[in-house]
Amino acid sequence: MAATKTYLTGIQTSGMPHLGNYYGAIRPALTAAESNDSLYFLADYHSLNSIKDPAKLREDIRSVAATWLACGLDTERTVLYRQSAVPEVFELATILATVTAKGLMNRAHAYKAARDRNEAAGGADLDAGINMGLFNYPILMAADILIMETDVVPVGRDQAQHIEYTVDIAQAFNHLYGEHYSFPIPEGAYPEGGGSILPGVDGRKMSKSYDNHIPLFMPENKLKKLVRRIPTDSTPVEEPKDPDASVPFQLLSYLAAAERTQDVRKRLEAGGMGWGELKNELFEEIDTRFGPMRDRYDELMAPGSELDGILEAGAQRARRRAAATLAKVRRAIGID
Amino acid sequence: MAATKTYLTGIQTSGMPHLGNYYGAIRPALTAAESNDSLYFLADYHSLNSIKDPAKLREDIRSVAATWLACGLDTERTVLYRQSAVPEVFELATILATVTAKGLMNRAHAYKAARDRNEAAGGADLDAGINMGLFNYPILMAADILIMETDVVPVGRDQAQHIEYTVDIAQAFNHLYGEHYSFPIPEGAYPEGGGSILPGVDGRKMSKSYDNHIPLFMPENKLKKLVRRIPTDSTPVEEPKDPDASVPFQLLSYLAAAERTQDVRKRLEAGGMGWGELKNELFEEIDTRFGPMRDRYDELMAPGSELDGILEAGAQRARRRAAATLAKVRRAIGID
Repeated sequence: MAATKTYLTGIQTSGMPHLGNYYGAIRPALTAAESNDSLYFLADYHSLNSIKDPAKLREDIRSVAATWLACGLDTERTVLYRQSAVPEVFELATILATVTAKGLMNRAHAYKAARDRNEAAGGADLDAGINMGLFNYPILMAADILIMETDVVPVGRDQAQHIEYTVDIAQAFNHLYGEHYSFPIPEGAYPEGGGSILPGVDGRKMSKSYDNHIPLFMPENKLKKLVRRIPTDSTPVEEPKDPDASVPFQLLSYLAAAERTQDVRKRLEAGGMGWGELKNELFEEIDTRFGPMRDRYDELMAPGSELDGILEAGAQRARRRAAATLAKVRRAIGID
Repeated sequence: MAATKTYLTGIQTSGMPHLGNYYGAIRPALTAAESNDSLYFLADYHSLNSIKDPAKLREDIRSVAATWLACGLDTERTVLYRQSAVPEVFELATILATVTAKGLMNRAHAYKAARDRNEAAGGADLDAGINMGLFNYPILMAADILIMETDVVPVGRDQAQHIEYTVDIAQAFNHLYGEHYSFPIPEGAYPEGGGSILPGVDGRKMSKSYDNHIPLFMPENKLKKLVRRIPTDSTPVEEPKDPDASVPFQLLSYLAAAERTQDVRKRLEAGGMGWGELKNELFEEIDTRFGPMRDRYDELMAPGSELDGILEAGAQRARRRAAATLAKVRRAIGID
């Protein structure tokens, strides 16, 4: 039997997750953790590249942590910590930079996308508005992964390059210092399931950048209003409808049990069920499924809740692991 | 009266310093410290960009620390620490990267020089062989300086850009977060004196890269041999000589008291003093001046010496200051 593998999941702290994040990232990641040595970290220094408002950043970090906990992240069996609570990560990133070719960073997707945007806008300076936090991020992410001696990183396909880069950087280090210490070479795990194509209220992929998302935890009345505003066509109540062409039905089919989805499909196809009724069904489904989580979320977000204590305990566990790795790395490179 | 200013001097850990380093950097820096709040750090993570041999790196760091201590660095009044002993530096560098324009790094001298070398060599990839430690170094140096809330950085003129970059980065941070915290804006102090033009044994500027240097602390017999090998012309002993055209005399004039230099000058100009005798004078001068320091250096380099304890005590003092700054910075950015 293979030894237990260490799984590490990075969590963006860019405000409250939405339904698409839940089905595309949160639920698969929590499922992956069920039988493994799993760590989750809140990549708060990543957010600092874009969020320069301290109050918003602080709130976002709390909100994302509370969301994952409310969704069932079990801190008895797994470790949840803030990237910023493990300073060993930043020292390791400094070390890894010395074995990382600059050419590798030049080809990083996020950086190239930013340059392409500058080019499309006709700017002469393709690096305009690009900060070094963005440029360096692949190194910081490699440090996040390697400091925990991670074996498996569950990520979306769009993050595959980060894993490749981490492998490249780890191999460069191992090539130079392998006589003294070698990082385990991590691999990506790309969850199945259509979470990444959960539609937003306008039918495109649900995404904050399209502003078409349904936040996971909204007050009941706001959620109801948001669901009611999902655009539908003007087919009268009594006429048959094509369920698959309707965003509320697509959403319902993600959330509801198969039996219920089938029932609604039949009623829409038969005619007699209006879009309003469908939206009520969808609202009920979201509210039933996420209501208890929302209550837990609200508890955790209250001032003086146990949230800070949970994060502190996770940080201590994470730092013990990180410090052990860093000590080995420092000895290997001759800085000890 | 102005408050006491904080001075910070960075020390490269690339092996034992030579006479040119002593007159160009060590002595001016130690003089600057006499009336100030002064800190000195060994930039060991900088060396990691070029030195991938752990045993050599370890030895170099000890050797440089022992050299500065032997040269009179007073750890009662000043603080000496290793960069690698202050992890707050690396976290601050991560923070500063998020406010640093990539365009600034593109224009950094050390990086551009490396690209120019690639271009001159006819390579297609101008970033070939350039690692991210080199590319990021201006940010790490800014973190070194700002973490100590430094007012003044004594550096050579060739390092002026690093100070400018640190000012740019500090101002970018202050512009965004000044409501919550502002870094003091540091300035460079460019020591007077001709140390930087101390000639090497071949008459060019003394430099390890020219391999024309006289290490500060060599065993007596090796030093004597090295001085004897300094090239001179074939003017016979009895003929008059031009002291200023001779490397041994130029070196002697840096080291010896003015009276003695004048005496030797007269004897050379009058004829009757051979180059061999001049070299003996130079050897005696070096040996007399640096002999006691060499003994102290040897003591510090011995296994089990107090060197590690001195560095550890310095690290503790440096970390207290660094932690105080970092706490303010974290609060300002919303990561606390």
